[in-house]
Amino acid sequence: MRRSVLKNLRGLLTPDPRKAWVVDRIPGAAVAVEDGRVAWIGTEAHLPAAWADAPVVDGGDAWVTPGFVDPHTHLLFGGDRSQEFNRRLHGVPYTQIAAEGGGIRETVRATRTATVAELVAAGEARLREMRDRGVVHIEAKTGYGLELEAESRLCEAYLELKAKGWSLDVTLLPAHDIPTEFAGDPEGYSRLVAEQWLPELVHRFPGLARYCDVFIETGVFTVEQGRRIFQAGKALGLQARVHADELSWTGGAELAAELGGASADHLMFCSEAGMKAMAASGVTPILLPTTTLFLGMRDWAPARKMIESGCRVALASDFNPGSSPCLDPLLVLRLGCLQLRMTFEEAYTAMTLHAAQSLGRPDLGHLHPGAEATVLLWDVKDPLEWVYWVGGTFRPRTLN
Amino acid sequence: MRRSVLKNLRGLLTPDPRKAWVVDRIPGAAVAVEDGRVAWIGTEAHLPAAWADAPVVDGGDAWVTPGFVDPHTHLLFGGDRSQEFNRRLHGVPYTQIAAEGGGIRETVRATRTATVAELVAAGEARLREMRDRGVVHIEAKTGYGLELEAESRLCEAYLELKAKGWSLDVTLLPAHDIPTEFAGDPEGYSRLVAEQWLPELVHRFPGLARYCDVFIETGVFTVEQGRRIFQAGKALGLQARVHADELSWTGGAELAAELGGASADHLMFCSEAGMKAMAASGVTPILLPTTTLFLGMRDWAPARKMIESGCRVALASDFNPGSSPCLDPLLVLRLGCLQLRMTFEEAYTAMTLHAAQSLGRPDLGHLHPGAEATVLLWDVKDPLEWVYWVGGTFRPRTLN
Repeated sequence: MRRSVLKNLRGLLTPDPRKAWVVDRIPGAAVAVEDGRVAWIGTEAHLPAAWADAPVVDGGDAWVTPGFVDPHTHLLFGGDRSQEFNRRLHGVPYTQIAAEGGGIRETVRATRTATVAELVAAGEARLREMRDRGVVHIEAKTGYGLELEAESRLCEAYLELKAKGWSLDVTLLPAHDIPTEFAGDPEGYSRLVAEQWLPELVHRFPGLARYCDVFIETGVFTVEQGRRIFQAGKALGLQARVHADELSWTGGAELAAELGGASADHLMFCSEAGMKAMAASGVTPILLPTTTLFLGMRDWAPARKMIESGCRVALASDFNPGSSPCLDPLLVLRLGCLQLRMTFEEAYTAMTLHAAQSLGRPDLGHLHPGAEATVLLWDVKDPLEWVYWVGGTFRPRTLN
Repeated sequence: MRRSVLKNLRGLLTPDPRKAWVVDRIPGAAVAVEDGRVAWIGTEAHLPAAWADAPVVDGGDAWVTPGFVDPHTHLLFGGDRSQEFNRRLHGVPYTQIAAEGGGIRETVRATRTATVAELVAAGEARLREMRDRGVVHIEAKTGYGLELEAESRLCEAYLELKAKGWSLDVTLLPAHDIPTEFAGDPEGYSRLVAEQWLPELVHRFPGLARYCDVFIETGVFTVEQGRRIFQAGKALGLQARVHADELSWTGGAELAAELGGASADHLMFCSEAGMKAMAASGVTPILLPTTTLFLGMRDWAPARKMIESGCRVALASDFNPGSSPCLDPLLVLRLGCLQLRMTFEEAYTAMTLHAAQSLGRPDLGHLHPGAEATVLLWDVKDPLEWVYWVGGTFRPRTLN
């Protein structure tokens, strides 16, 4: 057994997995670690005698926290969209950009022509940046292939990233958009995805994906088409994560609740019935405020109403090239506080414990005994500074 | 004469001081520098023969730009307000925090008890952070003393920072708030500032301050009290910069125009008449979007209307401990694009050329011949990435 005690800490900050929305703050803390798991936390003065002879690791007067978990990313894609972005700033509507073959279609073209090695290299650079900013585990979607072989290459790249040791959960999202080959036929495409592609991808990459996702939105996929794909996924062991109620209300949150899904994401236009249904069925609402910022929208997701409805809200980056090229968890945290009007403790819980719970990982997102010791050290007077110094860059130290 | 040519540049980005809102992009650029001033810019292939034998500096394939100018900061203050900030996130209204002696009063207490050495040390740390992110010149206000000797110590600290080589313009702002000693008597306080303190501060620190400022707002100082202070300042050679129309319309922009002021700042509730008056009289509207973000407000300043009204809009950080603890110019730039809906070129011009013009510095904020060679090198494919990678950290290299 490998045992050690982390001492000389200014404080410890961790959500309490046993109590809703409670964040423990332990000044002068110590953390006892055994075989990579947290065995004990408390004030250094109260360290149990059994740990007296364990090797000591010096925390250097830092705050210690668990790592952030990011439960909604589109990690892998080819190209970027910075030029299109400037056209949008100049007032060119997205519909026009899309009609000219830009927008998501540009990313789909670049993704279809990318090799697995190129995808892996781009993904690793992005994962490194996220890790350097405190993210220890992410959810990562396919969805810029929109054809079987391209979606398959994305799976292959994710498999390789996992083999390299990156901690991520894969979600299959061939129904991210209607590919040009199926223009005007979302019904046919949704059948193809449900009946052929999902089974084929699960067959080719057994055990890789844990979730499937559908972009349910006016003009993209209906609730009925989504249900078809999610039910096919369920039969293959894939739990639902739903792109829901992002640009208009379509009932995506209600569908996630009906299906016993893991999460419904975006939710700017979620109904009160949808909130209650998510709370009752244990679906995690995942809010993506950097997307609202980046699209210049004024409709921030109703986080406060969701919390009051009993939902265990989570926050995520939505990292993607078109609407949230954001690899910084602290920008998400800041917008959670400043624009979604969550308290620091709520937003922090949303990016750690609740994010991990939405991915079925009770051992992540906190540092109570039993947790994986994803221990980050922050040289700040108080973690509040992450939000307060609103333009600041904070990168944690790690023990390795 | 010291001459050099900066070569091997991916590109050069600079506002054109002769054309409204035009930003030049020169791929494969070179910059000829003579005695610290730009002597020539163009494509490297067209470098005039006269520069053929000048020493070459390798730009390392970077983009070269002028430095950012920040025309509205409250650089010097004691303490910080991160604890109060969390109370605000928990829904405690600012009025209650203020009634309990918190808010700006807490900063005033901490500033009054700070030594000049402490103020200088805090100021230098902040200036270093801004410089490392590309800011080469700032405006910096007094205003957390609210008594003659404390305001005087702030001037002394600014004098020392200038002596250490920091490039800043000082604005006297004793009328930042009504001090507790004058509670209920803004009229008496505004007379004291106008008749005694401004003359005394100018007498003690000749040539230090170039501007004076008043917080004109419902419940603080009226337009009439502001006019009294600004007229006293004018007689002392101080041009007006006005905290105007931040929380409600009070006519601050109109007053700035009437007085021939340098700028009117904040302006979330500026009238259309105020916009036209600023455009006609050459007052620079300075918008502070990080403040809107940090206060969680939904009323972003009407930048587009101002541009359409013919105003030369500038952007600034409003760096201060209560409503904008932001030292990152790129966050200001991002919010200018994403929430104020300026194009990249407009927001960039607003943070360089127009910011410098509001401070009477035609030699800053661009790299056309005659400009101070405040040359920054950015290792990006394109400067658009500053905004596009919305959570990213970018720090320029300098030639020194």
